[in-house]
Amino acid sequence: MTDANPLIVFTPSGKRGRFPVGTPVLQAARALGVDIDSVCGGRAICGRCQVTVGEGEFAKHGIASRAAHVSAFSDVERRYDRIKGLAAGRRLSCQTRITGDLVIDVPPESQVHKQVVRKEADTRAIEVDPATRLCFIEVEEPDMHKPSSDLERVYKALKEQWGIDNLSCDLAIVTNLQKTLRKGAWKITAAVFSRAPGGGNRLVAIWPGFHDRAFGVAIDVGSTTIAAHLTDLSTGQVAASAGVMNPQIRFGEDLMSRVSYVMMNPGGEREMTDAIRQALNTLAAEVARQAGIDTADILEVVLVGNPVMHHLFLGIDPTELGGAPFALATGLAVTCPARELGLTLNPGAWAYVLPCIAGHVGADTAGVVLSEAPHEQDEIMLAVDVGTNAEIVLGSRARLLACSSPTGPAFEGAQISSGQRAAPGAIERIRIDPVTLEPRYKVIGSDKWSDEDGFEEAIANTGVTGICGSGIIEAVAEMYLAGIINQDGLIDGSLAASSPRIEAANRTFNYVIRSPGSGGNEPVIRITQNDVRAIQLAKAALYAGIRLLMDKLGINQVGKIRLAGAFGSHIDVKYAMILGLIPDCELSKVQSAGNAAGTGARIALVNVKARDEIEAVVRRIEKIETAVEPMFQQHFVEAMAIPHKTAPFPHLAAAVTLPAPKDVAPAGQDGGERRRRRRG
Amino acid sequence: MTDANPLIVFTPSGKRGRFPVGTPVLQAARALGVDIDSVCGGRAICGRCQVTVGEGEFAKHGIASRAAHVSAFSDVERRYDRIKGLAAGRRLSCQTRITGDLVIDVPPESQVHKQVVRKEADTRAIEVDPATRLCFIEVEEPDMHKPSSDLERVYKALKEQWGIDNLSCDLAIVTNLQKTLRKGAWKITAAVFSRAPGGGNRLVAIWPGFHDRAFGVAIDVGSTTIAAHLTDLSTGQVAASAGVMNPQIRFGEDLMSRVSYVMMNPGGEREMTDAIRQALNTLAAEVARQAGIDTADILEVVLVGNPVMHHLFLGIDPTELGGAPFALATGLAVTCPARELGLTLNPGAWAYVLPCIAGHVGADTAGVVLSEAPHEQDEIMLAVDVGTNAEIVLGSRARLLACSSPTGPAFEGAQISSGQRAAPGAIERIRIDPVTLEPRYKVIGSDKWSDEDGFEEAIANTGVTGICGSGIIEAVAEMYLAGIINQDGLIDGSLAASSPRIEAANRTFNYVIRSPGSGGNEPVIRITQNDVRAIQLAKAALYAGIRLLMDKLGINQVGKIRLAGAFGSHIDVKYAMILGLIPDCELSKVQSAGNAAGTGARIALVNVKARDEIEAVVRRIEKIETAVEPMFQQHFVEAMAIPHKTAPFPHLAAAVTLPAPKDVAPAGQDGGERRRRRRG
Repeated sequence: MTDANPLIVFTPSGKRGRFPVGTPVLQAARALGVDIDSVCGGRAICGRCQVTVGEGEFAKHGIASRAAHVSAFSDVERRYDRIKGLAAGRRLSCQTRITGDLVIDVPPESQVHKQVVRKEADTRAIEVDPATRLCFIEVEEPDMHKPSSDLERVYKALKEQWGIDNLSCDLAIVTNLQKTLRKGAWKITAAVFSRAPGGGNRLVAIWPGFHDRAFGVAIDVGSTTIAAHLTDLSTGQVAASAGVMNPQIRFGEDLMSRVSYVMMNPGGEREMTDAIRQALNTLAAEVARQAGIDTADILEVVLVGNPVMHHLFLGIDPTELGGAPFALATGLAVTCPARELGLTLNPGAWAYVLPCIAGHVGADTAGVVLSEAPHEQDEIMLAVDVGTNAEIVLGSRARLLACSSPTGPAFEGAQISSGQRAAPGAIERIRIDPVTLEPRYKVIGSDKWSDEDGFEEAIANTGVTGICGSGIIEAVAEMYLAGIINQDGLIDGSLAASSPRIEAANRTFNYVIRSPGSGGNEPVIRITQNDVRAIQLAKAALYAGIRLLMDKLGINQVGKIRLAGAFGSHIDVKYAMILGLIPDCELSKVQSAGNAAGTGARIALVNVKARDEIEAVVRRIEKIETAVEPMFQQHFVEAMAIPHKTAPFPHLAAAVTLPAPKDVAPAGQDGGERRRRRRG
Repeated sequence: MTDANPLIVFTPSGKRGRFPVGTPVLQAARALGVDIDSVCGGRAICGRCQVTVGEGEFAKHGIASRAAHVSAFSDVERRYDRIKGLAAGRRLSCQTRITGDLVIDVPPESQVHKQVVRKEADTRAIEVDPATRLCFIEVEEPDMHKPSSDLERVYKALKEQWGIDNLSCDLAIVTNLQKTLRKGAWKITAAVFSRAPGGGNRLVAIWPGFHDRAFGVAIDVGSTTIAAHLTDLSTGQVAASAGVMNPQIRFGEDLMSRVSYVMMNPGGEREMTDAIRQALNTLAAEVARQAGIDTADILEVVLVGNPVMHHLFLGIDPTELGGAPFALATGLAVTCPARELGLTLNPGAWAYVLPCIAGHVGADTAGVVLSEAPHEQDEIMLAVDVGTNAEIVLGSRARLLACSSPTGPAFEGAQISSGQRAAPGAIERIRIDPVTLEPRYKVIGSDKWSDEDGFEEAIANTGVTGICGSGIIEAVAEMYLAGIINQDGLIDGSLAASSPRIEAANRTFNYVIRSPGSGGNEPVIRITQNDVRAIQLAKAALYAGIRLLMDKLGINQVGKIRLAGAFGSHIDVKYAMILGLIPDCELSKVQSAGNAAGTGARIALVNVKARDEIEAVVRRIEKIETAVEPMFQQHFVEAMAIPHKTAPFPHLAAAVTLPAPKDVAPAGQDGGERRRRRRG
C-alpha cells in the first residue's frame, strides 16, 4: 500500500508505528509508549522532549531519504533555541511533525525514566521516577455560562493534559490558587505528589507560569555527622552536598548517653528534636545555597538514621530504645508533610523516612539494604554498618536476616588509650616490620609515610595526636602478623628483650608506636594490652552477630561482603579479615560501600518504586535480637581469638601469610583474667 | 437431625443461623451480619451490645422454651450492671452464650446503624454511620523474640480485632503512642477516620484504656449568626447547641461590604478569617461546656456557609466572589485536619466542608439540599434560602437546577424606612381590617396582639421600634388584601379621605401602622411607597430566579416548596404566596425547613455516605448564572405585580380571596417612574 501512513521508528527502544502526516513526534511517541520527558506538555517551553532525527539510520531501517520526512525547523523551535539554546541536530519533538517515514533517536537525557548510575563501584542503575512531578497546565478561564470553581478547572487540566486524577490538595494550595492562576494568566506549573498516605495524587505546590525546578534532599542523620545531598528530581543528579556535626553531641557523645539524657531530663527529647531539626534546616539551606536554588524548590526530603536518631528527628521520645525489649514506636516507613518535622522547605514538601528494621537496626540499615540490594543477590551477601552498634544484614534473594551487635565504641577510637576520632593528626595506617618490630605509619592530613623524607615537616602543624579506628585495626592486625601478639591477643613480653618498642607496664606490656622527643608536648602513642582486649571484645561481638545470622541461614561461607559507613570506608578490608571482624571471604569480594545508608536515601528519593521495594524487603527481613539468643555468647567467646579460634580462613590464608600459633606466657593478673573470660 | 447446632433468630432483622453451643451471641450476630454495636470489641466494657432474650417469641418461631437456651447471667455482666447499670431483661450479647434454640431481640439503641429521625416535620430518617469510629483494642506487648514496633502491633490489633486495614496515622499519634500504650497497660481506644483524602483509614486519636466519648460539631456559618450543634457520633443525637453573632459584622453588615473591606484593606481577609475562626472555637468550647465534655472529645467538625463565609473560614481571599465571573477558589468538598482551620478540638480532629454549588450558591445550599433532598423527590421540589441573595434549588430525582437571585436586603428589614432586624420591639405579624384599614400587630418579645388588653404594658420595656422582614411581608400583603395598594403596588391615595392611616408624603402616600403618643420617643412605624417598591423589587428578583429555573425545567407548577433559613422560618407561607415571592402551590405543601443548611451539616456529620451523596448531587446540579440569562430581566419585570402579572395562582385563589384588580391613579412623579420601569 503506497498510501499507508508514514512509518516512525524510535531508537533506542525500537518501538514503531504508523501515524498520519502532521502528527507531532511527541504525540506518536506517547501513543507507542516511548519514554520522552516533558514538563510543559508539548508547548515548546521546557525543552525536555528533545530528539534527533536519525541520520544514517534510514538505510538500515529501509527508509530512503531524510529531508522531506519531518516538518521544517519551526519558528517556535527557533524561539526556544534563541532563549534556551538547542544543540545542533536537536529538535523539539512536540513541534516536529511527521511528514514521511522516519527514524527518531531519543537521547538519554530526554527520557522520563532516565537511568542514574548509582555509584562508580557498582553498575546497578537507578531509574529516575520521583514521587513528585512538575506539570505545566493551561487552565480554562471561569465562564459564567458554565460556572465551576478554579480548583475544579485545575483538576480538569491535570486530568486532560497529564492523565492525572484522584487528586486532592492541601488547604494552602486552595488559598493561593486564585492569585497564582491570575498571575500566570491561566497557565501554572503544578507539583503533584503520588505517595500521600491513603493513596491518590496530591497537588502540593503551584507556581504562576512555567517552573522547571524540582529538587529533593536525601539526609543521613548519623549520631556524629549529618550528611545531605540535594538532588534534581528530574535528572536524579546530585546538585550539592553538605555535612554538619550532629548538634546533639552536646547531649552525649554516643547514642545511649543521649537516651540517658532524655531519661534524666524531662522534656530533654524535645531539646534534642529541636537541635536536630534546626541542623536539618541549616543543611537544607546550605545545599540550596550551593546549588543556587531557593529552598522553596525543595519538594521532598528523604531521611535515614539509626533508631534513636530516627525517633528524635520524628519527635518521638527514645526512652523505650534505652532498655529491653527495645520497642520502636514505629518501624514502618513514615510519609508526612515536611513541615510536621519543622522543616522549612517548600510549604507543600513531603518527607519520607525509610522503615526501621528493629529496635537496634534502623532506617539507616534499610538505606544500606536499598543501596547494596542483598535481596537481589543470588549468592549470600553480608552487609555490615559499624558504629557503636554494628548493624548486620545477611542473606540473598531467598531469605534475609538482620541483627545488631553491641560492638561498643572501640572501633571509633573511644576507650582506646591513644584512641581519637578520625581527624588530622590521627594515625590511620600502620605497618610493622616483623623482624625489627619497627612501625611505619601515615597520619590523617599528610600523604607521607613516617619513614619517608619530609614526614615530620608534613605533620608539623598537627603533630601526631592519636590513633583513629582504622589505625587501631591495622595496628592490632600488624602486631599479630609481626608476632607481637599471639592468636589470643596476648602481647609477647619476651620481645622486650630485643625491641625497645615493647614496654612493660604494670603486669602487662605495651607496644609503643611513637615516642616524641623530650622537648615536645605530643603524647606517646602506644597500644596497651587493654587496647588489644577492647578491640578483641568489639570484633568478637561483631563476628558473633554475623555468625549467629550464618547459623540461622545454615551457612559457613558468605559470597560477598559490604562494609558500610565511615568506618567501612576507611578500613583496609584485608586487616579487617586478619583481625577476624568479618568471616572469611574472597578478598576481592569484600568492598567498602561508602555511605550506603545515604545512598539508599538518595535512591528512595529519586525512585518511588524503591520505597515500595524497601518497605516490602524490610517486612520480610527476619529480625534477630542477639540479647535473647543463647548461641550469641558462645560465638562471642569463640571469636575472641585472632582471626578466630575455630572458623577456617582459607581465602585469607591464601592471601596473607598468617603467623604460626605461638605460646605466649601470660604476664601476671591480666592473663588470668583473660582465661577466665574465655571460659565464659 | 436432633444433634444439629442450636438455631438462633435475631429480631427485628429476622436473620437466623445455627451455631455451636457456647458461641457468644455477639459473635453469632456478626457472622450473620446482624447490626449490633460495640466499642470494646466484646469485652463487657462498653455495654453497647445489649440485647433482650426474646420472651414470648419462642412459640412463634417454633422454639419451645427459654430457660435453658442461653448461658446464665455471668459475673462479668453482674460487674457491668453494678458499675454502669443494665436494665431488667437486658444481657450483654458479648457475654451471653448460646446453649439452645433462641430468639434474640436487638433494641434500636444497640444497633450500629441506628436511625435518627431527622426532624419532626419530616419522616426521613438518617442512619448513624459516622466517619470516625472508636475501637477499643488489646495490643500485644513487645517481645524481643519477635521484634516489631508498637505501631505495627496497634495496626495488627485493629486488623484482627476490628477488621480495619489500610491504616495510616498522624505523626502526633506516633509521638504519643508508647506512653499511651504503657499507661493503658496495652489496652487503648483508637479513633479511626475513614474519609482522609486519598482513601484508607486514618488513626486520628488514641486514649489509654477504654474511652467512650466521640463527638462531632456541625456548624452553620451564616453572615449574621453562627450556629453550632454538638452531636454524639455514636447515637447521632444533638448533645448541645449554641449560636453567636458573626463577629465579621464589624467589617460590614452584608456580604458584599465585607468583600469590599478585603478589596480596600490588604490583609483584611486574614483579619476576617481570624475573627471567624475565633468565633468557631468559642462556640465549640461553649457546646462542649454545655454537654460537660472536653473539646478533645470532639473528633470531627462539619461546616457549611455561603460562598463568602466558606472562603473566609477556609482562609481564602473572597475578592473573586465580589465581581463577575464570580469564580469560587474551590467548589469541591474540603476534607482537612481541623487544626489547619485553626480549630482547637482534638488535635487529630478532621474538618469536612460541604461542596459549594456556584459562585453565589454555597455550601449552605448544599446543606439545604442534603436536608430537604430534592434529588430524592418524585415531584418537583422548590427549595429557597432567602438572605441578601436568595439561593434557589429546583427539581426532582430526574434533574436539579440551582441559581442565586439578587434579592437585596429588603427581606431582612434593611433599606426599609421602618425596617429593622428581627429583635425585641420589631413588628413581626400584622393584620389590616379591609373596611376600617386599622392594623393590629404583634411585636417580638410579646404574645399579645396590639388590640388585646395589656399590649402596651407587655411591650413597655422595648416599645415598638420597627418592623422586621416577616412583618414587612405581611404588611405589604395585607395592604394588598385590604385594597390599600393595588396589584401594581401603588398606594391608593384616594383612601386618605376615609382613613387617617393613609398619609400624604411628598407626591406619594404612606400607610401608618403605629403613631406613638406625642410624649414618647418611639418612632412612627409606617410603610412608604418606596418600602412597597423595595419589597416588590426583592420579591420580583426571587420570583424571576425561580421562574428561570422553571423555564429550564419546562414546568409551570411546582409540587412542594421548602423555605429555609431564619426568614423562611418566620414567614407565614400564605403571605409569601400572596405577595408572589414564590410560585403558586398547594398551601399545605409549602413548609418552612428551619435551619436546613445546619441540618444538612448535621446529616453529613453523622452519616459518612451523606458526604458522597451531596458531593455527587452537587456535581450534577445544573448551575444557572442569572446575570447572563436574558430571560431573567423579563421575568423580573413581570414579577413586579402582586401576586404576579401573568402567572396563574389557582391554589392561592382557592385559599384566599384576592382583591379584584383596581386602578389607582398614579400620584405624581413616582407613578411615572413605576410605569417606565414596567416597560423595562
